Amino acid sequence: MDQKCEPFIQTRIFCPGPTPVPLEAKLAPLDSEIYHRSDEFYALHLKCSEMLRPIFGCEQIPVILSCSGTGGLEAAILNLTAPGDEVIVVNGGKFGERWEELAVRYGCDAKVVKVASGEGARAQDLEKIMVNCRAPKAFFVQANETSTGVRHPVAELVSVLKEAFPECLVVVDAISSLGAHPLNMNADGFDCVVSASQKGFGLSPGLAFIALSDRAWSRLSPRPRFYFDLAKEFKGQSKGRSAWTPAIGLIQSLAVVLEKIHGIGLEAMIRNHELLAGAVRASLPAMGLELFAKSHPSNALTSILVPKGLDGTKLQELLRDRYGVIIPGGQDELKGKILRLSNLGFVSRFDLVHALSAIEFGLRDLGYGPCSGVGLGSGVKAFMQALDA
Amino acid sequence: MDQKCEPFIQTRIFCPGPTPVPLEAKLAPLDSEIYHRSDEFYALHLKCSEMLRPIFGCEQIPVILSCSGTGGLEAAILNLTAPGDEVIVVNGGKFGERWEELAVRYGCDAKVVKVASGEGARAQDLEKIMVNCRAPKAFFVQANETSTGVRHPVAELVSVLKEAFPECLVVVDAISSLGAHPLNMNADGFDCVVSASQKGFGLSPGLAFIALSDRAWSRLSPRPRFYFDLAKEFKGQSKGRSAWTPAIGLIQSLAVVLEKIHGIGLEAMIRNHELLAGAVRASLPAMGLELFAKSHPSNALTSILVPKGLDGTKLQELLRDRYGVIIPGGQDELKGKILRLSNLGFVSRFDLVHALSAIEFGLRDLGYGPCSGVGLGSGVKAFMQALDA
Repeated sequence: MDQKCEPFIQTRIFCPGPTPVPLEAKLAPLDSEIYHRSDEFYALHLKCSEMLRPIFGCEQIPVILSCSGTGGLEAAILNLTAPGDEVIVVNGGKFGERWEELAVRYGCDAKVVKVASGEGARAQDLEKIMVNCRAPKAFFVQANETSTGVRHPVAELVSVLKEAFPECLVVVDAISSLGAHPLNMNADGFDCVVSASQKGFGLSPGLAFIALSDRAWSRLSPRPRFYFDLAKEFKGQSKGRSAWTPAIGLIQSLAVVLEKIHGIGLEAMIRNHELLAGAVRASLPAMGLELFAKSHPSNALTSILVPKGLDGTKLQELLRDRYGVIIPGGQDELKGKILRLSNLGFVSRFDLVHALSAIEFGLRDLGYGPCSGVGLGSGVKAFMQALDA
Repeated sequence: MDQKCEPFIQTRIFCPGPTPVPLEAKLAPLDSEIYHRSDEFYALHLKCSEMLRPIFGCEQIPVILSCSGTGGLEAAILNLTAPGDEVIVVNGGKFGERWEELAVRYGCDAKVVKVASGEGARAQDLEKIMVNCRAPKAFFVQANETSTGVRHPVAELVSVLKEAFPECLVVVDAISSLGAHPLNMNADGFDCVVSASQKGFGLSPGLAFIALSDRAWSRLSPRPRFYFDLAKEFKGQSKGRSAWTPAIGLIQSLAVVLEKIHGIGLEAMIRNHELLAGAVRASLPAMGLELFAKSHPSNALTSILVPKGLDGTKLQELLRDRYGVIIPGGQDELKGKILRLSNLGFVSRFDLVHALSAIEFGLRDLGYGPCSGVGLGSGVKAFMQALDA
């Protein structure tokens, strides 16, 4: 650690992935004397699949893949589209861009709903794109665009889409959304939902989850695939048997966090995200700060505009090096312009008191008026007041 | 655990992956407050890449992928072949079969050197296949066929291959071989070597490693790929930056085991495998057992023929349930016919004393003469004598 950091401070991470990992989940893989081709492990794997199912709200078990979330996105493209397929992609930031890149890379005819940075996708923009579509095979969107802290109004978009193209498969990247916002594949009419371990699940990265509707399972594309062959995985995982050697340690941890999530209750998890993110947003004016998200702010993270005249990258480094608080900034063209304060996963009010306190000290150190002198602490106070409201 | 197991016995795993994980490597991920987009993590990732390089013996750093070994094999096919390419595949078991499946799935014209189960590939069989080749793009082989416990004579095969087809890329699946048998990409003239975390590296599964020669880097295929795009990964990883979110915890553990491997010395690691596997083989006659490998036995694992009249699956279950010793059996058509006792990775003579002792007790329980009465313990004794020779 940087020597400027007080020796009493322990580093804390407030990223929209990786998120904090509960101690009991970290400890599970210490027992590494387990073979993945054994009844004991099959039972553990199947238990994870069954516990994932209600979180996705799907008929069939979700498939667990040993890869990052991007591997899950690729699996969706490989299994549900064929070269030349017309698809609609919502691109409202770095992760929307990833859907677009994947679709183009794999030869799809991608019609892109371009969304202004920091805004949610608008139904009218989708309608404009749909005018030029013949029969789109699939619609790709982020439930939560992690790069801007915006939650797209997916239900509204899907309702517009289905009116014109009821056959179009709805594919939702819920990587940074699941557990933070309500989602139920069945009720919402989604055909494919992707998530990953290091997000709302509070694990280390290395697992992706992908759930398909019965409709999607019946329409797998003929494209060649091997590691990401979902039908093969599904068949085996229905009996707890992954096609390839799984990330055993992460599966052991997954069982622990899934028990924890079901113990808390999915609805209570989501309500906690709403409450905490709402209170963070409510605290910003007291620090003289503004939200970057111009509409549909996320409950998984808060995108905070760095005040004019301050260097966001310098603020980030200061928070990390002097206060041991890791808050990622903007990516690409948003670099230095925003902070992305996450409350995704197993995060409590006191974690955010910690983070907001550090932000205030950091802004004070940079000579930012509203957080200096008698202003210091106003943000934390406003956050607590908002929770008490 | 099964109730028949004495409560004092701790379960032990003797699989050719997953292999035992050193405690210090298990503990490294307990610090999960680390962001993968930070200088601290870039330095850790790059340090791993640099420490991997001498283990592969390659010019450029190997690429680290967050997936199982099979993902690494797919990456080799996707990056080095195009549809219609003629390739030669050695198939001497379940993993040779995987090369074949991958090549066929991705539209290669696969010429297969079929090897009898339990034998090493023969140069004359390769020559027969080569007669019908025009200009093979790549040659795919296992350094160690984990399913049969056989180590193919790769150097001999490659020398035959290169005489006729010097331009053919040599791609070696060294997943269960690296660290157990000598390998040096530069000296051996290999163009691509794949390995994985849960083998000689002594980690949990979830990482694959893939190293390319300069020649291979200059001949990447135009095939579309995304998650397994090696050029993109290589460019980023040269600065410690993986393209996608890496399995952070496994990278933390990897740094620990690589320090350990370099502390021991790669040559000493390999010598330990030679010594231990040699002594296991030497101990078999004392137990009335025979080696399944008819030629080129592996030093990573020993494939032991289950004595006639005994049910191998029952023996395996007995060892697991009564003695807490996990030794995998044969796969597919070898199911019930062999045991595959592994000494891959961080395994000592005392670990094998433990395993052999359990095998003897298990055979005695099944009424197998040579391990009963005064015979019991003869295998362990012979193993110790062999080490002392």
